[in-house]
Formats: sequence, structure tokens, C-alpha cells
Amino acid sequence: MNRGYDFSAGPAQLPERVLHEAQAELLNWEGQGCSMLELGHRTPAFEALLMQAQDDLRALLSIPDNYHVLFLGGAARMQFSMVPMNLIHPSQTAAYLLSGTWSQLAYEEAARLSSAYVLGSSGDGGYRAAPDFSSQAIQPNTAYVYYTPNETVHGVRFDRVPKGFEMPLVADMTSCLLSEPINIDDYGLIFAGAQKNIAAAGLTLVIVRADLLTHAPSTVLPYMLDYRTHVTHRSLYATPPTFQCYLAAKVFQWIKEQGGVSALSERNEEKAAALYDFIDASSFYRCDVEKRSRSRMNVCFSLTNAAYEDAFLRDATQAGLYNLKGHRLVGGLRASLYNAMPMEGVLALIAFMKTFAKENQTS
Amino acid sequence: MNRGYDFSAGPAQLPERVLHEAQAELLNWEGQGCSMLELGHRTPAFEALLMQAQDDLRALLSIPDNYHVLFLGGAARMQFSMVPMNLIHPSQTAAYLLSGTWSQLAYEEAARLSSAYVLGSSGDGGYRAAPDFSSQAIQPNTAYVYYTPNETVHGVRFDRVPKGFEMPLVADMTSCLLSEPINIDDYGLIFAGAQKNIAAAGLTLVIVRADLLTHAPSTVLPYMLDYRTHVTHRSLYATPPTFQCYLAAKVFQWIKEQGGVSALSERNEEKAAALYDFIDASSFYRCDVEKRSRSRMNVCFSLTNAAYEDAFLRDATQAGLYNLKGHRLVGGLRASLYNAMPMEGVLALIAFMKTFAKENQTS
Repeated sequence: MNRGYDFSAGPAQLPERVLHEAQAELLNWEGQGCSMLELGHRTPAFEALLMQAQDDLRALLSIPDNYHVLFLGGAARMQFSMVPMNLIHPSQTAAYLLSGTWSQLAYEEAARLSSAYVLGSSGDGGYRAAPDFSSQAIQPNTAYVYYTPNETVHGVRFDRVPKGFEMPLVADMTSCLLSEPINIDDYGLIFAGAQKNIAAAGLTLVIVRADLLTHAPSTVLPYMLDYRTHVTHRSLYATPPTFQCYLAAKVFQWIKEQGGVSALSERNEEKAAALYDFIDASSFYRCDVEKRSRSRMNVCFSLTNAAYEDAFLRDATQAGLYNLKGHRLVGGLRASLYNAMPMEGVLALIAFMKTFAKENQTS
Repeated sequence: MNRGYDFSAGPAQLPERVLHEAQAELLNWEGQGCSMLELGHRTPAFEALLMQAQDDLRALLSIPDNYHVLFLGGAARMQFSMVPMNLIHPSQTAAYLLSGTWSQLAYEEAARLSSAYVLGSSGDGGYRAAPDFSSQAIQPNTAYVYYTPNETVHGVRFDRVPKGFEMPLVADMTSCLLSEPINIDDYGLIFAGAQKNIAAAGLTLVIVRADLLTHAPSTVLPYMLDYRTHVTHRSLYATPPTFQCYLAAKVFQWIKEQGGVSALSERNEEKAAALYDFIDASSFYRCDVEKRSRSRMNVCFSLTNAAYEDAFLRDATQAGLYNLKGHRLVGGLRASLYNAMPMEGVLALIAFMKTFAKENQTS
């Protein structure tokens, strides 16, 4: 198979230029005499790279000075535990909005480790929309309100930021950070695994408002799970995933050159609209997510006649359109359209879908 | 700077062939149509790679079937918390042998999170040898005995496995796993960060005897910190650091082709002996670690006249001999000689040291 268009939900396609650069300098990075895979994390060169990456991220998202930016090793899943462990005091609880698999899992972990309740859920409807909620239902001892702006498994997106409460908002932006402009001041804490729009798997970014950590519970946390450890040590308490940090730095640079997050956001909206419009106009394909809640990153759809699914996936792969299978929990099909997916990829997919429908509609 | 010999303590030099292979296939791995940096962790190709890596590691270290092998994301430092959280019951404590910075930090974390005591320490002597201990001093409610077979900061190595007790032995082998043969049956749990002898930073290997987990404390652990989670999900509970797993698979292959761990161990012994012998025979250089406890991985030494240190480091760098500065906690010089360092690198270092001594001895 040649390099085609990879519609995987993550780990996902990276900008090809980033890969070419990483390839060219894989044995000797910027004259350091070694690979970035080998470079020490306490060398001035790496510390400068990490600082630059942080500055670039701050510029791309207009992150105010009263927020810390952390580059942590490991998967975003760790945040499902770290958020409640760091932010919920013993007498408190936390409110969760459930819009799909990831918010549900995050809620279950918070409830297990501390205390949490469901403020709103669209689970009864099979997660086909962002949930409604009443801010009247927020309990007074709520430490934070948690939500997942974009859910990859069900393809559900919040079309607005939940508001109407004084508690800080926590957001799992693993699949949407840097894909559209956000107002950081709306949030108390944002986290994102790197393997969608940032870098390769193994890095998690955390953006946290400083005052939330000064009020952290006094319970004894493992050092590695205490945000304050990583703030104090500027993300260098333990050896970070240096290569992923380096890729992130390159991707941030690439985003700047694409015109920043706003420019990518416009492209992302166009890409998703083109695909949804085609699906909606077709009787061969369908999308069951409510229009207002449709993800721009993960277009979940299916064939009206599911019997063609295997053939669809096989033919798509042969056409250089990879990883269109839906998540194993829900089945169907899914086209993930992260920042690195060009409009050409979406148009190639639509052209393929058109042909496939024509060839199989009457058979 | 050209690629030279990198004596960094970690992240450290990788076998150059591994880097060349990774470079060649960086945009399209084994015809998958995408980079390993992009490949999904739930694809059959990645699952096969991870399985093969595990099988190769099992073969290289003769790991019996009653041990689990885990590939975890993040730094080895996480294990300082996970070991006590998973293995110490509320009524128990754990015994720590302190031979340097890392075992001391691991002890402090265990004592903070649970309960632990120092069974033996060479800290009073400035960690110049592995500590002595009496198995009589082991408390009956001890869950495990913990030690660090090789300490990178002080260059201290245990020349034998601590014995004389029934409790399982836990070993932080971050800087020595795969550098010499071990008898897995001697251990209850072994862990190792990848950035020395295994892969790039961001991956931690855990080898744990299955029965230890069936007796784990019933306290509620964060899912990501519970070894059983990763056993159940075969290291795929969350997205693992896929690229580091891929590098590890390549390094395991490279070790096999070098003749396995025994062959590397012989080379490692020769490399270290050549350098220590030269240092001991010189009045210009000195090594203060007791002979029986000298690390084969990290040769810590100093100049008899420390005033030459900056010049030594500068000239060494110009000669293509990189990162010889000692750890910031102890100063001096350090040459790390992991598996990927060839004898040629050690001989080049000795030749440089000889010339540097001659040129500066009488000045």
C-alpha cells in the first residue's frame, strides 16, 4: 500500500511535511550530533525546544499567563483519574455531561475515585446529540463541570460551550484541540492526548488555570499524578516523551504556517460540511447524529444496507482511503478529518463513495 | 556536530542500524500506507508488532509463563508510586535498599503513599557502594524488598542479587535491563524505563509475577495505575506510545542478532573494565566507587584536578565524544556505556582521555 488518505480516529495522519522533516533529521537533529530519539531531556537544546513549543501553543490558542501548560508523558486516559484526584475536595463532588464513550468513562472513573454525578446525558438516545442540562441541577458543592467537546466514537460535538454556572469547566479536548478557536478563559482545565491533532501517541497536554492548583485537596497524591509536581518542574520532573514533544513543536509550527487555528477551523468546517452534505443527499449512506451536534473531526455514518460494509471498506482501502471502519463499540463507518487531512482527501472519499453507491445501488 | 559517541545517561544512544531502519520507513511502514507515528494501536499490524515484541523480550530474558509483560506509556518514575500502591496491603510495609538517588526517591514515595523502611543504605558514605543489609532486619509484615541494581547518578551496581528472605524482590532495572543475564525467578516485579537500553523515552516495561496481582490490596486505585488493568487489556487499555513500542521491537531484534543478552553482557563487562582500568592506572583521573560496586553502565569519574573539567568537556565534544558531564546532583564526569555503545566508542574515549591528561598534566 502506498501512502493514501488515512481516516483513522487516532493515532492519526500527521502533516506529511512534518514526517519528511523528521525523517531527514532522524539521525542528527540540528547538528546536535544525535537523533531526537536519543537527545537528553536536560540538554539546553531540548529545554529550548520544549519552551518554544509551549510558547507556540500559547500563541496559537491565546493562552493567558494565569494558565499553566504541561507536557505530560502517557495517555490522556490518565487525566480521567488526575482531574478528580486534583480538583475534588473530600466534601465535594463533580458534574459530568455525557455525550459519548469518553465522557462516560471519565465520569465512571471520577465516581469511583471520588464523587461525581451526571448533569446531563444523551446516552438514552444512543449518543446522537450533545446532552441538554439545566444549570439549576448543579449541586452547590460541585468542584467542576466536565464535558467532552468532541466525542470520537459517536461523532458528537457540542456546538457551544456549556455555561450558566460559576464552577470551573473541565474539557477533554483530545480530539479537537487546535481544530477550532477556543476562549481559554471559559475553562478551568483542558487536556488533550497528542495522537489526533498534535503529535504521535504518548504525550498529553494539560492547560490549567493556576488558582485551581493552589486550592487542590490536601490528600496525598502520587507525585506523578499531582499537577503541581509538573508545574514546579516545568514538565521535566520525569523524562518526558521527548520525540513526541519534538513532533508537537513541528506541528505547532505547521499550524502557524497554515494561518493558525482560525484558518484550520474554516477548512475543517468546509471539509466536514462537504462530507455531511453528500451523505444527507444520498439514500445509500446515512448519518444518525443530529445536525446541530455533528462532529467536524469524526464523521460517523453507515450504509443504508449494512451488507455492503465489508466491500466498502475493502474497495476504499484499494483506493488508498484507509481506516474508515467505525469504532468497535458502535460499528458502521467513520471518517476522521483532523487538521492534517486535506480537502483533497475528503473530495477523494466523496468521489469514491459516489462511485461505490452507483455500482452497488441497483445490484 | 556530526554523529559521534554519545555517553549520555539517558535518553541515550540507540543502535545506529535501528535509526537507519526507522528513517527509511518513517513515511510508510511495511506497506501499511502510513507512518508508524500514525498507525492505529488497534490495527492488526500494530497488535502483531506488540505481540512479537513481547515474545522477543520473553525469549531474550527467558521470562517464564507465570510472569506478565506490560508495555506502559509514560516514565518509569510512575512505578515509584505504582509499586507500593499495587503491592503493599494496609497492614504491611516494604523494605528498601538505598544505593543512590533513584532508590532513595522510590523509597520516599513509598513511605509517603503507604509505608516503607530502609533495610540498608550506603548514603552515609555518599553512595560509593551497594549497601549491606541483614535479612534479620526484615520486618515480618514486609510486602517486598526493593532495590535498584544499577544507579545511574552515582554509578553504583549491586554485584549480586539480594537474597535471604521470602518476600518478593522488586527491581528498578531502568538502566540495566537487557545489559546482562538475569534470572527472572529471583524477582517478583521488574520495571524499566525505555530510554537507556530499550527505545526512546516515553515507554516503561513491567515484568510482574502473576500471583502478586491476585493478592493486590483491595483499595481503589486509579485504573491506569492498577497493573491488573493493563494485564486484562494486554497493554492496550489506553493508547500506548506506539512509536516507542516499535523501536523496542527493533532493538530486541538487534539484541538477538548481537548474540543475545549474554553476548552483550560480555561486551559490556569488557567496555567498562577497559575504562575503569585506564582510570585506575592514571593519576589524572579517579573513580571513587568501590571496585565491587562499580556500574558497567555508568562509569562515574572525575579529574584529580577539577579545574580542568570544563576544558575536558569542551575538548571531548570537539572530538565527537558527547555528554560526559556527571549528573547535576553529584558533578564530575560520567560515561554511560549502554548496549548501543560499541567498544570503539570506549577506546576513542580512552584515547582522548590519555591525550588530554598528557597535554594538561604538567601545565
